[in-house]
Amino acid sequence: MGKLVDFEKAGGLVPAIAQDAATKEILMLAYMNEESFQETLLTGRACYFSRSRNRLWRKGEESGNVQEIVEIRIDCDQDTILLKVNQIGGAACHTGYRSCFYTVVENGTTRVDGVRVFDPATVYGGKA
Amino acid sequence: MGKLVDFEKAGGLVPAIAQDAATKEILMLAYMNEESFQETLLTGRACYFSRSRNRLWRKGEESGNVQEIVEIRIDCDQDTILLKVNQIGGAACHTGYRSCFYTVVENGTTRVDGVRVFDPATVYGGKA
Repeated sequence: MGKLVDFEKAGGLVPAIAQDAATKEILMLAYMNEESFQETLLTGRACYFSRSRNRLWRKGEESGNVQEIVEIRIDCDQDTILLKVNQIGGAACHTGYRSCFYTVVENGTTRVDGVRVFDPATVYGGKA
Repeated sequence: MGKLVDFEKAGGLVPAIAQDAATKEILMLAYMNEESFQETLLTGRACYFSRSRNRLWRKGEESGNVQEIVEIRIDCDQDTILLKVNQIGGAACHTGYRSCFYTVVENGTTRVDGVRVFDPATVYGGKA
């Protein structure tokens, strides 16, 4: 098959949205390079590229909270990836929230609206 | 209020996901700079920054298919924006599909799975 994703346009990385396949909640956004995309296709588990650590990031490699791929979509410009996933452990965010998007912007301020599934100190041994 | 979004980290632009507030379908991903984010907060309509045109992009300015903001969320790293929107006209994609993510990657190939709401030649006068 031809090139599915245009990694070159944005310098090698494209955003990848993880959406809960069952509830449709948006869990997180991370980035993929071509290698992580290929690994994701091959293994059926979400593999991102960590910009801060500058290496492949197999989601759940520390916490065990892997993301099983249910469906992969790409957008009309071929520069964004959408993963519909089954989030093992129930939480995608390293803070323990189900979704990284637990902060609502409202009336010039913010409030937290999210479900905390785990205590990061327990899961990451105090490293979070 | 303090800085809600860290625009500087990624060189001035952050990804913004538009999700249908009612159906939870992911409609599109575009980018925002600080000015477009402030305009979105002020007007209650999605305003992005077009990387290709290098200017503010008031979604729907040509097609009339504006996105009314229902809720705005930011992620734990403050470098991604989530807009829950009411998509006027029913389609977010310039190709006429409801969502830009109408391409499914499956078994080493792709297939189209989306609802086409309008004919772009009619809406954009043949410019799309």
